[in-house]
Parts: sequence; C-alpha cells; structure tokens
Amino acid sequence: MDPVSFEKVTVRDPFWAPRMETNRTTTLALEYRQMKDTGRIDVFRLDWTEGKEPRPHQFWDSDVAKWVEAAAYSLTTHPDPELERLLDETIELIAGAQQPDGYLNTYFTLVEPENRWKNLRDMHELYCAGHLIEAAVAHFRATGKRTLLDAMIRYADYIDSVFGEGPGKRYGAPGHEEIELALVKLYHVTGQVRYLRLAEFFLNQRGLKPSVFQMERPGEEYRPELGYHQDHLPVREQTTAEGHAVRAMYLYSAMADVAAETGDAGLLKACETLWENVTSRRMYVTGGVGSSAQGERFTGDYDLPNETAYAETCAAIGLVFWAHRMVQLTGDSRYADVMERALYNGTVSGLSLDGTKFFYVNPLESAGGHHRQDWFGCACCPPNIARMVASLGGYVYSTSGDALWVHLYVAGSARVEIAGRTVTVEQESGYPWDGKITLRVKPESPARFALRLRIPDWCEGAATAHVDGAPVVLGDCMEKGYVCIEREWTGNETVTLMLPMPVMRLRANPAVRQDAGLVALQRGPVLFCIERADNPADVHRFSLPDDAEFEVEFVENLLGGVIVLRAVGLLDEDAGWQDALYAPAPVSTKPLTITAIPYCVWDNREPGSMRVWLRRC
Amino acid sequence: MDPVSFEKVTVRDPFWAPRMETNRTTTLALEYRQMKDTGRIDVFRLDWTEGKEPRPHQFWDSDVAKWVEAAAYSLTTHPDPELERLLDETIELIAGAQQPDGYLNTYFTLVEPENRWKNLRDMHELYCAGHLIEAAVAHFRATGKRTLLDAMIRYADYIDSVFGEGPGKRYGAPGHEEIELALVKLYHVTGQVRYLRLAEFFLNQRGLKPSVFQMERPGEEYRPELGYHQDHLPVREQTTAEGHAVRAMYLYSAMADVAAETGDAGLLKACETLWENVTSRRMYVTGGVGSSAQGERFTGDYDLPNETAYAETCAAIGLVFWAHRMVQLTGDSRYADVMERALYNGTVSGLSLDGTKFFYVNPLESAGGHHRQDWFGCACCPPNIARMVASLGGYVYSTSGDALWVHLYVAGSARVEIAGRTVTVEQESGYPWDGKITLRVKPESPARFALRLRIPDWCEGAATAHVDGAPVVLGDCMEKGYVCIEREWTGNETVTLMLPMPVMRLRANPAVRQDAGLVALQRGPVLFCIERADNPADVHRFSLPDDAEFEVEFVENLLGGVIVLRAVGLLDEDAGWQDALYAPAPVSTKPLTITAIPYCVWDNREPGSMRVWLRRC
Repeated sequence: MDPVSFEKVTVRDPFWAPRMETNRTTTLALEYRQMKDTGRIDVFRLDWTEGKEPRPHQFWDSDVAKWVEAAAYSLTTHPDPELERLLDETIELIAGAQQPDGYLNTYFTLVEPENRWKNLRDMHELYCAGHLIEAAVAHFRATGKRTLLDAMIRYADYIDSVFGEGPGKRYGAPGHEEIELALVKLYHVTGQVRYLRLAEFFLNQRGLKPSVFQMERPGEEYRPELGYHQDHLPVREQTTAEGHAVRAMYLYSAMADVAAETGDAGLLKACETLWENVTSRRMYVTGGVGSSAQGERFTGDYDLPNETAYAETCAAIGLVFWAHRMVQLTGDSRYADVMERALYNGTVSGLSLDGTKFFYVNPLESAGGHHRQDWFGCACCPPNIARMVASLGGYVYSTSGDALWVHLYVAGSARVEIAGRTVTVEQESGYPWDGKITLRVKPESPARFALRLRIPDWCEGAATAHVDGAPVVLGDCMEKGYVCIEREWTGNETVTLMLPMPVMRLRANPAVRQDAGLVALQRGPVLFCIERADNPADVHRFSLPDDAEFEVEFVENLLGGVIVLRAVGLLDEDAGWQDALYAPAPVSTKPLTITAIPYCVWDNREPGSMRVWLRRC
Repeated sequence: MDPVSFEKVTVRDPFWAPRMETNRTTTLALEYRQMKDTGRIDVFRLDWTEGKEPRPHQFWDSDVAKWVEAAAYSLTTHPDPELERLLDETIELIAGAQQPDGYLNTYFTLVEPENRWKNLRDMHELYCAGHLIEAAVAHFRATGKRTLLDAMIRYADYIDSVFGEGPGKRYGAPGHEEIELALVKLYHVTGQVRYLRLAEFFLNQRGLKPSVFQMERPGEEYRPELGYHQDHLPVREQTTAEGHAVRAMYLYSAMADVAAETGDAGLLKACETLWENVTSRRMYVTGGVGSSAQGERFTGDYDLPNETAYAETCAAIGLVFWAHRMVQLTGDSRYADVMERALYNGTVSGLSLDGTKFFYVNPLESAGGHHRQDWFGCACCPPNIARMVASLGGYVYSTSGDALWVHLYVAGSARVEIAGRTVTVEQESGYPWDGKITLRVKPESPARFALRLRIPDWCEGAATAHVDGAPVVLGDCMEKGYVCIEREWTGNETVTLMLPMPVMRLRANPAVRQDAGLVALQRGPVLFCIERADNPADVHRFSLPDDAEFEVEFVENLLGGVIVLRAVGLLDEDAGWQDALYAPAPVSTKPLTITAIPYCVWDNREPGSMRVWLRRC
C-alpha cells in the first residue's frame, strides 16, 4: 500500500481546511519572521563571527528546514506568490551555505568547524541534515524544482562517503534520529538504493556494545541503559518505548520505512512490539506520548500523569508519522485509529486557533498557568505542527494494487492511480463533528477495484454503509478494520458511510493510577475537556454522574465552530469550609451544567483551569 | 509561657520512647559513622589540603552541629558513656578549629579563606554558625559543660563585631535562616541582650530595597521577588509563605522568638498572618510543607500535589519549631494542634523504624519507587530528625505564672517550677493509640494553680475530663482550646482525660484540586495510609465507600506496634481490559478488605505503592 501524496489531495473540510488556511496566511508568515528575527535564516549567509549575537545554535538548520517543508506543502494546495518568493529566497540561502565537499551545517561551519562529526550524540548534526533532506524532497514534490534537492543529494552523498561499513568509512549514529527517515524519502524520489542502505546502517548502529556514542567520546560518562537515545539495545531487540519521545517516534518511523522497503521481518516485528507497548501502556488518550518533562521522555508502563504530562507536540506528530507508516505496512486500521486520535487531539492542540501561538507541552490538566507561547528558544514544535497541518492531505488515502484505502474522513477530493487508471475520489462530510460521510469514486473509465473504508475503533459495531442506498453488510466484508467494497465503479455510485457519534465515557486501564476512577469524554474522534472559560468554577470542582445525559450542540461561533457537550454534574461548594484546609465534614455539592469543549481548542480564550479526566459521582 | 525544657522531661510512652531509644542506640551511632566516613568530623582538624578527597562542603559544619545537639539531648534522658566520649571528642575537635578572631567555619577556613562573609546568600556561612550555636546551647543545658558554649560565645561575639548597624559594621543576612533563632537561644542561656539584638538585626535585613543579597554580589542576577530566600518583602510585611520551605520555617520561628522577647507587634502579626497562610492554604495533611521539589519550596495556595509532594523532613521539623514558639506566645491550641500533626506524621515519617534510613522527601502517594536512604550528600535531614526525636520531651509542657500547660499527651513525667514550687507531673496513657490519659500533679507542698490541658482539634466537643472521678464541665473552662482546671493540688488527685478516637474521614478544602473527591483517614493525631504490603494490589485500585465501617485493631507485632484500620472497599479489577489502554467499558470492581496503617511507618517493609488520599465510592 502506498500513501496518496499530499500534492494529490485537496482538503475542504470544516476542521482541517480552515487550519490549513490559517497556517498559510498566518503561521508560516510569522514563523518566517521569528526565524528571520532570531538569526536562523541569515545564518546561512555564513557571515557570523565570534562575538556576534545571536550566536548560532546547533538546532537552527532544522527549524528552517521544517519551515521550508511546511511552506512547500502549503504551496501545493494553495499557490501563494509571496510565500513562493520567500521559499525560493530561503532555499537559495540554504544552498549557498553548502561547502565544496557537500557538507551543509551552519553551526559546524561557523562555530565549531574543528568538531564536525565529533559529537553525533548531542549536537544534532545528522538530525539537521535529515530535516534539510526532508525539506528538499517536499520542495521537489511540491514544485518540481531541484535546487534544494540537488544540494541535498550532494550532502547525502557526502554523508554516505563518511559513514558506513566500507573501507575508509566510520561508524556512528545520530543522537537524535531523523536522517534515517529522510534518507528513505530521498531514496523514494531518486531511486538510489544507497540512501536506503545508509538509513539501514544508521539504524543498525544503535544498541551495539560498546555503544557508538561511547566510542565516539570515550572520556565521557554515558549510560546507554537509560535509553535516552534509544541505544540501550539493538533496534530489532527493543520492546519498550524508552527515552526521548520525539527521538523514539522518529526512530520507529524509520524502522517501519526500512522494513517496508527491505521486508526486514526483525524490524517489522520490533515495530509491532514497540507499537503495542506505546499504544497499550504509554500513550495519553490525546495521542500524546512522553510522560515526563525530565528528559522529555517515556517513563514506565501505565505512568500517565495528567497535570505534569509532557506530551510534546513533536512527539504526537512523530506518532502520526509512525502510525501512517504502519498502516501502509499492515493495512490494519488500529494504526490509523491511533493516527486519527493523535491528529484530532494531541497534535493539533499544539497550535492556537489563530495560528500564532504554540504548545510545546500538552498536559491533560492545568491549574490555569499553562499557555501557548509565541516562540521557543528550542523551536522544534512550531514548524513541525506547520508541516503537519500543511501536509494533512497526505494522510487521508492510500492505494494498493487494486484498492483505494480511505484512512481519514476529510472532506475534499483526490486524484489517485489505481490499476493504471486515474480515479477521482470525493468526500463530503461535516467530520469530525458529524459522522455521515458521502463518497464518490470516479475512475476515468469504469473499473473494478476495492474501496476500503476504515471503520474507526470508536464506532465499532455501530457503523453502516450503503452504496446507492443498498446496504453493505459490514460483517461480511471487514478486513483488519476496513470495510472492503469491491465492485465495478462507473463513477455514478454514491457510497454513504454512517459513523454514529454518541458521547462516549472512556475509562483508562485500571493499571493507570493517575486516571483511577476518572472518566474522559470522546465523541467521534474528538476528545473533550472542561475548561474554566465555559464553567463557573475551577474545573477540578466538578464531577459527572455516570448516568448524566449529554446535550450535544454544534456552536458555529465558538472556537472556530465546534461541538459542545453539556450535562448536569455536581459542583463542590466552599460552603462551610471558610479557612479550614482539612476537616471531617463532607464537601457539599450542587447540581449544575458542565460544559465540555474539544481538547484541541482549549486555551484559546481567557486563561483558566482545564482537565480531560473528570471525576465521577 | 515558657516551655519545660527537654532535660526536665522523661518520656515513657509507646510511640516516642522506643524511637528515642533507637535514636540513641542506632541512629546517633550510624550518623556519627557517616559523618566520620564522609570527612565531616575530621575536617575540623583543619588538615585538609587542595586535591584531597573528599573536598569539604559549605554545609558540613551544620551536619556535625546537629548531631552534637541530638547527642546532647539524648545524654540527658539516657546516660551513655560511649556517646558522651564521642561527643566530648567531637566538641574538642570543633572548638579546636576556632580561629584566633573567633571565626569557626571549616569550609571558609580551608577552601575559600579569601571569601569569608562574601556570599551570605548561597554559602550557608551564618547558617552553619547558627547550628553550632544551637549545639553549644543544647550541650550546655544537657551537661553543664561550657567547652562548646564558650567557643560559640566567642564566635557570636565575633559575628556581632562584623554585622550590625554600628560604625565599622556591615549589613548582611543569612541566605538560609537559622542563626537568628540560635542567637535567641544564646541570649537565653547567657542573658546577653546583644545576641537578641543581632538576631533582630538579621531579621530586619530581609526585603530591603535594594536587597542585601543584591548589594553583596552586585554583578550577579538575583530576583528577590521569587521569594526563594524570603527576601521579597520586609519580614513584617510578608503575608504568604514563599520560597525554600525549611528557610521559611526557620525564619518564622526566629520571628516568633524575637516577638516573644521584644513584644514586637509587627513581628507577631506577621507570624499570625503567615501561619494562617501556611496552615490553611499550603500544608499537607501530614504537616508537611513545601509542595515543589524545584527549589524545595512553597508554590501557591491550595497547590498540594501528593505524588510529587516535596514536604522535606526538615521543613516539617521547622514547622514544629515554629508551632512550638507560637503556642508559647499565644496559649492558643491551634498551634499545638499543628505541632502534633507534624510530629506524629510528617516529621517522624522521615526516619525508618529501625533508625537506619531517612526520607528527605515525604510524598503522600507513591507508585512504589520512593524509599528511605542511608544518607545524603546534602545530609540535613538525618541529624535534624535525630535532634527532634531526642528533644521530644521539650515539646510536651509549658509553665506560666500559675499554670502548667500540657500540649502533648506523652506518657512519662516532668519536674517543673510553678509559682516558685517544684511540681512533678506524671502522665499515663497509650497515646497516640488510645485516648485515655491519666495525669497526676504533685507539688512539693499543696498549691493552687491551673492545669491547662489541650483538647486536640480532632477531638473537639467529644473530650471529657474528670478529677478524682468528678466530671469537669469542659464548656465552662475552655480557653483557646485548653481546658483549665484551677484548684489546689495536693498531689493525691488523679485527672482523667478521655479523648475519643473514632476513625475520621478527612476531606480537603474544595479548592485543593489534587484532593478533590478524595478522603484521608485519621484516628487521634495519627494519619493513615494504605500501603501495598498490606493489600493485595496497587493501592490506587482501591476505593472506599463513604459508609464503610472500620475495624480498629492494635497489632503489637506490626511496625513496632500500631493501630491498623480495616474496612471493606472496592478493588478495580483488570477483568475485560486485556491490553486496552482506554475503553468505553466500565471498570469492574469487587469488594475486599482494605487495610490502612499509620502514614509515618510506611516503607518499612517490602517496597510498594502507598497513598494517603483514598478514592471514595
């Protein structure tokens, strides 16, 4: 199965389309401005000298690269001459910073030229290279222009001349994974298998004894067993998600990429085992991963603190990358279920509705002090969410030999190739707010193939499908969570999918101590929270009866248009407490309407408390 | 009102007496061994030279001083020739390190002699001096020996010659408060008012504009508004507990001390305001204070996270110091109520039952990874809990003109002076496990005075008292929480106090988000917790019905003999969950007996989860 690339998909839905437009008109512009103001763009002129402020940082190239990637995606779906000009100008600057040998890293060219390739573990050198390569591939696919792609081919060839098994080459691995998946993308656009081999080489360097990171810097203390760099075991032997969550997600994505290309059963098995560990033990209900701010990392099974959740925006994005690859590899909807969960909740929460502010950290509970910021010194998340939103179309469809797969219900259209024929597919729906989806599949001439539609996990057993009004018996044609409608398509058929969206009360596995006794609300793919702005007191004071009925309303003029849930719950009152801090007296309660909004849009109004997991009563 | 000093009180109760004995036989010996092994004792020989390991640390003198203080207290209640020998030897070493000008600090004598008094904010120089002075006072009161006292008088005189308002003197304040309360103690034993004035001077240095800490190190960034050093406002204007919790508690204790001596209404008012803030907004139900590990500090009102609670042992001890002083100042039992809460729960939890291991941090919930340690690089807590336990007798009684005050119910006896007569008071009880207390008051000749007995807050309205079988009408003779029995005492009277101890379900103020919907169990002054060792599953899985009845049993051979509570609760079962992490299915429960033990003795058996605040069902 191959994903239908972003450039072939048009999005016109009520959720993503406005976000893509805001991304284009606001976010990309302000991110460029931030990068310009902080020196990240001009550093590529290579005229920085010691003593000048700001001093270049080893992450900088990656920030610009992700912006280039995001801008390239955006141009595909919405031509924008000003953005294209900025992009061309930036790419020219980037390409101009390339050294005669192909090397391209502003920090190590300007600040520590003597230390090139000397601290792969900490200095993000290969990570920056990876993002530049991803940017080049995106730019080429979006525009057909080769400026950046050719430069990055030279860079990749140079890297390939330095690292590897051959004579005169050296061992090494990126401390922050990223280049591996970039090299697979480069392999896809160039067909040069050496990039795939290099990606594989980097994967295979992890978890050796002694560690490549230890050998690289023999004098320094380094503890691979902590797993921070996913270097505790060879990748095929890793069974639990460890260490820095973004690094882990990028690594697993690359493992899936290489497994898809090489059929490496060990890599695929490791991906499946790690997936089980992440999604059944270490993932927030938002799709966020990485419980701890210390080390931005995974902790242990079932350790999912809500208020102190780290759940970095980039890590949720990384989970989407990985999930997307696993779907292609397996055709199993459980991967797409998680992809959808992360997309509609824990990734897009990273961006304010007006496109100007960003969460680095996405807690599931706040006392009111957590807010999106304009920018960060370590600015990985803002351009990452920008490229995610701009390329959203690329996550919706796949094709295999004789099937069209629909993973996400995003209104719009796509042009795909199935069995040698161009097929236009159109989706109409109010998803994620409404579960009625109408699809039309229009081959250039009548053709027999399968339409495979994901039945989301939250809808299991309740979905119905019709073709031109005739029911499809789902039980008979479900495969790995996709209903398979195989027939000759003339272009005149209308497929109707009904995904009922009752409000669900989710519970967490009883092993999760932080969610014991609590309930989360989900409707369709959207997770809800209660926020102070809609409720008359701090939100920890509310509890929800197990039998409370919900009023579900789409509110057009609220938070960009969202479904709101309302139910009668109880409010813990101050009555009788005065200044007592502890007392044997009960806490009195009064009934009152609780209002819940989608988690992803919290903190877009006045500051206040928020929580996803609600007390029951 | 003056406290009856430790050396006049004998403790023979089931709770403290065994701990005092273990403290003497085990803890003091092993702490000496640790201090010896880590170089803290021998550093006083002043033969350390650059390059030798271990390198002296600026805290070291205070650790040894607290051990000296603890050992001195212990000798009073239990002569021990070996301990006395060690103590004399150690004191000789300490005194031998005094410089000709009176200065005594090993770190600044050996490591940074050029920096004496140059970084009062960070380097604990006056803090160490304070602990040495406290040690000297304790040693003198315990043994009558003046070796250390005379040395510390010289040191204090030297400090007094350096700091103060007079000509040739300098401004400055200790970054870690401590010397202020030590100087008041020195004033008490010497009668020299200059020590009191110096204490007052140090108090008055805080919160000036510009800050003394800023003036001391003009080039460095320093933000007094963060309150870490209680330097954000002049002490009389401080209204909320800010910053490092141990420092805050020592400061407030010193403020109470100075207020008691000088009648400074501004200081007393500030103490009362700060007390209200701490005890009605920022104190754990254990008496622990300081919610955050970052900065070991207070955070905001009603912010009391349980699993990540810092609640340093030293801070709870500091709260006891402050409470004890406030009781003397005001005769109000609410201070003694908190003192009792901290003593039986959040301080003594710092020490393992066998006296060999220490908590620095006292969380109210643990997933099973928090354990007492043998020692710490920053070893403030071990000798602090040792001196607290060894001097426990000093917190039980006070005398005022014509009254004997009983703050704590600790079986044993004391010899006190009331209105010029020596009076022996005897207490018999099984407190804190049993609420029946028998008191006998035996003046050397019949005398009229008042016996003032604290009626604990947890017992309000339920206590009864009898003198020789005749009921005392409590309502008629309660003053600020003490029942006042004024009569002529011949020595033959028996006073019986009954403090019923039903199991109480405590709730936290509805503003405390971390305890919303939860309940804590207290019986008498003892707070309970559930620990994995007594229960068949991780403790977050249990919930307690509001109407569950408790079985209360004293178990002689458990944890040194403790009351155990048992009730039928519900256990969240895994049934039906398999590998699901989130599901709309309910969590099934089964009834099962929950066992709770006193919080202070948790983590004395196999490692496992623990929580104080239980879910209700």
